[in-house]
Amino acid sequence: MSHIAVYPRTTSFSIETRSRPRPAKMRAAVFIAPGRIVLEDKPVPDIGPFDALLRITTTTICGTDVHILKGEYPVARGLTIGHEPVGIIEKLGSAVRGFKEGQRVIAGAITPSGYSTACLCGCHSQDGPGERHGFKAMGGWRFGNTIDGAQADFLLVPDAMTNLAPVPSGLSDEQVLMCPDIMSTGFSGAEKGGVRIGDCVAVFAQGPIGLCATAGARLMGATRIIAVESIPARQAMARRLGADVVVDFSKGDPVAEIMRLTDGRGVDVAIEALGRQETFEAALRVLRPGGTLSSLGVYSTDLTIPLGAFAAGLGDHRIVTTLCPGGKERMRRLMEVVATERIDLGGLVTHRFPLERIVDAYELFAAQRDGVLKVAITP
Amino acid sequence: MSHIAVYPRTTSFSIETRSRPRPAKMRAAVFIAPGRIVLEDKPVPDIGPFDALLRITTTTICGTDVHILKGEYPVARGLTIGHEPVGIIEKLGSAVRGFKEGQRVIAGAITPSGYSTACLCGCHSQDGPGERHGFKAMGGWRFGNTIDGAQADFLLVPDAMTNLAPVPSGLSDEQVLMCPDIMSTGFSGAEKGGVRIGDCVAVFAQGPIGLCATAGARLMGATRIIAVESIPARQAMARRLGADVVVDFSKGDPVAEIMRLTDGRGVDVAIEALGRQETFEAALRVLRPGGTLSSLGVYSTDLTIPLGAFAAGLGDHRIVTTLCPGGKERMRRLMEVVATERIDLGGLVTHRFPLERIVDAYELFAAQRDGVLKVAITP
Amino acid sequence: MSHIAVYPRTTSFSIETRSRPRPAKMRAAVFIAPGRIVLEDKPVPDIGPFDALLRITTTTICGTDVHILKGEYPVARGLTIGHEPVGIIEKLGSAVRGFKEGQRVIAGAITPSGYSTACLCGCHSQDGPGERHGFKAMGGWRFGNTIDGAQADFLLVPDAMTNLAPVPSGLSDEQVLMCPDIMSTGFSGAEKGGVRIGDCVAVFAQGPIGLCATAGARLMGATRIIAVESIPARQAMARRLGADVVVDFSKGDPVAEIMRLTDGRGVDVAIEALGRQETFEAALRVLRPGGTLSSLGVYSTDLTIPLGAFAAGLGDHRIVTTLCPGGKERMRRLMEVVATERIDLGGLVTHRFPLERIVDAYELFAAQRDGVLKVAITP
Amino acid sequence: MSHIAVYPRTTSFSIETRSRPRPAKMRAAVFIAPGRIVLEDKPVPDIGPFDALLRITTTTICGTDVHILKGEYPVARGLTIGHEPVGIIEKLGSAVRGFKEGQRVIAGAITPSGYSTACLCGCHSQDGPGERHGFKAMGGWRFGNTIDGAQADFLLVPDAMTNLAPVPSGLSDEQVLMCPDIMSTGFSGAEKGGVRIGDCVAVFAQGPIGLCATAGARLMGATRIIAVESIPARQAMARRLGADVVVDFSKGDPVAEIMRLTDGRGVDVAIEALGRQETFEAALRVLRPGGTLSSLGVYSTDLTIPLGAFAAGLGDHRIVTTLCPGGKERMRRLMEVVATERIDLGGLVTHRFPLERIVDAYELFAAQRDGVLKVAITP
Repeated sequence: MSHIAVYPRTTSFSIETRSRPRPAKMRAAVFIAPGRIVLEDKPVPDIGPFDALLRITTTTICGTDVHILKGEYPVARGLTIGHEPVGIIEKLGSAVRGFKEGQRVIAGAITPSGYSTACLCGCHSQDGPGERHGFKAMGGWRFGNTIDGAQADFLLVPDAMTNLAPVPSGLSDEQVLMCPDIMSTGFSGAEKGGVRIGDCVAVFAQGPIGLCATAGARLMGATRIIAVESIPARQAMARRLGADVVVDFSKGDPVAEIMRLTDGRGVDVAIEALGRQETFEAALRVLRPGGTLSSLGVYSTDLTIPLGAFAAGLGDHRIVTTLCPGGKERMRRLMEVVATERIDLGGLVTHRFPLERIVDAYELFAAQRDGVLKVAITP
Repeated sequence: MSHIAVYPRTTSFSIETRSRPRPAKMRAAVFIAPGRIVLEDKPVPDIGPFDALLRITTTTICGTDVHILKGEYPVARGLTIGHEPVGIIEKLGSAVRGFKEGQRVIAGAITPSGYSTACLCGCHSQDGPGERHGFKAMGGWRFGNTIDGAQADFLLVPDAMTNLAPVPSGLSDEQVLMCPDIMSTGFSGAEKGGVRIGDCVAVFAQGPIGLCATAGARLMGATRIIAVESIPARQAMARRLGADVVVDFSKGDPVAEIMRLTDGRGVDVAIEALGRQETFEAALRVLRPGGTLSSLGVYSTDLTIPLGAFAAGLGDHRIVTTLCPGGKERMRRLMEVVATERIDLGGLVTHRFPLERIVDAYELFAAQRDGVLKVAITP
Repeated sequence: MSHIAVYPRTTSFSIETRSRPRPAKMRAAVFIAPGRIVLEDKPVPDIGPFDALLRITTTTICGTDVHILKGEYPVARGLTIGHEPVGIIEKLGSAVRGFKEGQRVIAGAITPSGYSTACLCGCHSQDGPGERHGFKAMGGWRFGNTIDGAQADFLLVPDAMTNLAPVPSGLSDEQVLMCPDIMSTGFSGAEKGGVRIGDCVAVFAQGPIGLCATAGARLMGATRIIAVESIPARQAMARRLGADVVVDFSKGDPVAEIMRLTDGRGVDVAIEALGRQETFEAALRVLRPGGTLSSLGVYSTDLTIPLGAFAAGLGDHRIVTTLCPGGKERMRRLMEVVATERIDLGGLVTHRFPLERIVDAYELFAAQRDGVLKVAITP
Repeated sequence: MSHIAVYPRTTSFSIETRSRPRPAKMRAAVFIAPGRIVLEDKPVPDIGPFDALLRITTTTICGTDVHILKGEYPVARGLTIGHEPVGIIEKLGSAVRGFKEGQRVIAGAITPSGYSTACLCGCHSQDGPGERHGFKAMGGWRFGNTIDGAQADFLLVPDAMTNLAPVPSGLSDEQVLMCPDIMSTGFSGAEKGGVRIGDCVAVFAQGPIGLCATAGARLMGATRIIAVESIPARQAMARRLGADVVVDFSKGDPVAEIMRLTDGRGVDVAIEALGRQETFEAALRVLRPGGTLSSLGVYSTDLTIPLGAFAAGLGDHRIVTTLCPGGKERMRRLMEVVATERIDLGGLVTHRFPLERIVDAYELFAAQRDGVLKVAITP
């Protein structure tokens, strides 16, 4: 991915221990312009009374970060990217209770405050820094979107009491690395879809989010899980995580195939995990009357709802969208899923890079080379 | 509406009493071709063991019937139209228990069997005659759609034990005439939207269905109900049935006005009650993050979901569609609403016609002349 | 169990094929008086238009049947016992559509009509033959309770279109034998409890119902499942079906142990599967504030809610009770769970008897001898 | 109520304006011992970064405060009582954003933090100061329970950003005085009961909470509301707030009367609003199968569930308990109900006292003299 310039890191950097003064500088993967995310030095952030400073031990790159890299999702020049932190509490704000410096924690990709109107409506994901007495349109995604993110040596976590979740001893960084975003998002596709015991569920696209949606449908008792995917490695992982059948859309119309597989009945829940018109539309077309389309994709164009697929509005259909649930309780539950080995997402981390090689990691991940699913980045 | 031919009714017809043999013939409003619904003679139907035969005492015309008339919604040539019956049980099938001939009853516009897979999934409205072991795409609307309807002297009601609902004494035909369809549909807009105490609800279009959606939102505890409508008589009725504010879309952008009225917050639930792209889209645009678009309209084109209005799929939005809930328990509850005077829908019947003048009634209703809201048709 | 008299069966009986006239007589396990269930001859039932006649191929004995045997649950003298049928459709009522004679089917223990008010309220299990326009207090359990049951050569199934569920080819009788009652009841303990991904669930007692509740909690994504049981064989089966921990109440206070296991937090959902004050109370005591007690047991005494366990009514607790969900769609879903090998209930059938030895089977099952969990009875 | 000693208030006290230094002392109604709540001087509290200090303009006395007075509910000696504040923001903590000093606000009786595990589970009422990483058994009621309360010149509000709700201009103190507790609690009885359009609801006891439950059931669309009460003034108020029928339990068995009124069907939802065995049991006995008992009362003894009323555990019943929902969004919604005149709770304030006469107010309220419903206390 030649359009990512490698930024020359000129200083020799080392993580300081807590007994010494915190380093003035840290490395961070920063958005410069479309096509350019670079590693550069930034000051270690100062923290306010509600905040915590994490020393990142492992993080990763998300498909959304690639959208940022490509300029498809705009963020401010100079922003640190990344929203999937595993780390050690370096310092706690003066008002933070219930945690200790030195604790190993994660925080969700979405960091609700807990006190906003959105949170008090039960809609924690839609609480962002611009939210005041009402709701803000952009939602509650802050890390690497409206504030500096996790692809750095240090990360400031706002509203720390709401967002820090201690990692159970015995779990490795990589084991919990998927909790902040893709497990939370993918599982919520099944949860918001209302999957019940005995449901038939179709999951469109088996990237990391779609794979976790497949796993989530399996966890909730779906008995027929149809994964739609054409890449063999992802097909294999889908089967490993719970898919009963894989439909390869490159070999025929997936709608026709799913209707055939269900004897014309359609599916109870269809999960969209790509963010394209084709998959959105196909998900609607395979729904049974009364079924639910649970949409996880981040779209980049207007969508069309075909009249027939929508039964002219008379099909008792539901279309639900979900932004990754965050907060410490959500993280606790997801780490429990890992700890109890209900599903094994281990195979999702296919590649590992030190932070200084993050630009290479972006290049690999954006190109989907070498069967990459997720990369682990270690500062 | 000059394109409706008046069919010459040649016979002098009279309703027979039950002590005499049932009449061999009855009058029925029949679809002939686009633009032609006529009153003609048909045999009184024979009934099977599950069925009931109603002698219709009052019925009405629905907007959907006008779609049929105009050829926008196809039905078989010769089909009797109408799905809103009030009548007397003329005869019960041999297997029907729990009812008596001579009882005054209504039946819902949608007539679930009770035994279908759709019904056993809790999705009673999606159960049609073609449903077998799974689901049928067309939904459970039978009267005036797949079987003969209510605009006639007699109506065969299938699955009578599931569908007949006795009218409480003290309620007139006109008082319960809205229960089979528009009250059930309109209220379900609020119900499926999940309206809660203190919600702000916008209802787009105040035709009969939209007016009932307004009333339903009021019944469920919404504290800010914004009705969108331009026709003065409908605006007045909207206020009478519970709207706090009326927005006239002909005098400015209703989206901007609703956002202004809600201080930029948006509404908790937006109900679409027209079936057009403009209203669907506006309903989505005024939603707060986490809000619900409850769609009641019957659409006739593909729909577009604008990317921004959909928050790129990240807004925790829900879009739900509903087909009129039916069945005797639903009808019982709606008649309770009328009997206890929770809302007064009396003003909805603006015009009255005998069955022999139904073609005139169609003409008036389709043209929306004379401030017509609903017409009562009496055989 | 010497108090069960063996009824002398004097006729030599053989199952007739369908091409010959049906036998006038059949064998049936009949309640005579407390302590006496006997096998005697009865006429093969005549069927009405909605009914089906099944030739039973496999059935079983339920704990409730033992209550009947012991006189703890009163039924009419002469009633055929049993509510868990697997069989072949021998004959269909004249009005039954959608099934064929010769089809292999099951029917749920509870047989809703589909058309009752209870059903139309979504409360299918509470629909019994005495239900008219409202609700009947005794619920919808008919087989072996208010009408003749399944421990016989033939079984009349009422409301056949609502209740017959074809068995997928490839599944044996024994594989689907648990669907009519214990799978449906046990799973519903988890379903009505609202088990969510990451929940901690305690299940009190690991008889057949409790084991299925354990399996249901596992199927729905609970990550910490604590089974309370003292019998080693049942402890082992609990672990096999999904329990993470087994608490032996005979070795210490299970409430204290569960609070210890949850670090004082309590459980999200506690499932009662025995029907005694001790287990009901313990289930309440281990609930976290806001938690749900899902009760499956059939009680035989008044219950006491201790003030403290109930947080004086201020704990945002829920107590829910469930009667086994029935109907063909429920059965279809449960058979899907079996067919897709989501759980393996195979080990539950520990003993097998021909119908002529059913009195021996009762004796074994009532005494809980020989590690019995469930018995298969084959006519 | 001669057992309440009047504490001699020796200092002449006046509310300071904000431009001058805050007064060192304030008056507060303080629990001394069973039978003794007295008005005494206390220091005005210091506030932390999350807190707000309110200058109370109006408050009231709750039935729970009478329990405290009588020694039935233990609190610490010296604690200021009261949990229903209307006031002006005197001072904001350093970290509080989104509010201004001088703003007129209310806060709920229950003050969730927003960041606790309980809150992040959606169980805001169960979040108390003792809650750490899990749940605390005592629930989230802090004012006048675990920290000083509102019957004073000043009140410290913890977690101010979660709990302060600005009062819309145009609403008087008395109009919003019921929002913090009795409207929130009473309405939640209907909300947690899941009241739907067309439901029949019985509300046991028409004290302030029960009256609000009646109003809540009406707001949510119940069509048959049966209030159980014997005091004529409360019967009249029940009718004014939405009851269709009042059953006087002093004139006959209310269970028999309610079953008669419902033709033996029972009610969909029964709300208990007293906290006694008789009402709890009666509420259970009038439930239809599948119905919900929504319990609001604060009990002081163990409860008995009669076997028959519970259908031996087979009735698909639900019993739900609720602790008053709090938080600024809840308060906003309740004030909307008042502002839009959906219900008129004006008549609930029957007596008014200045703070210096609060001991008299307790005496009147505890004795339920003079037709008292609620008293307004003004510092």
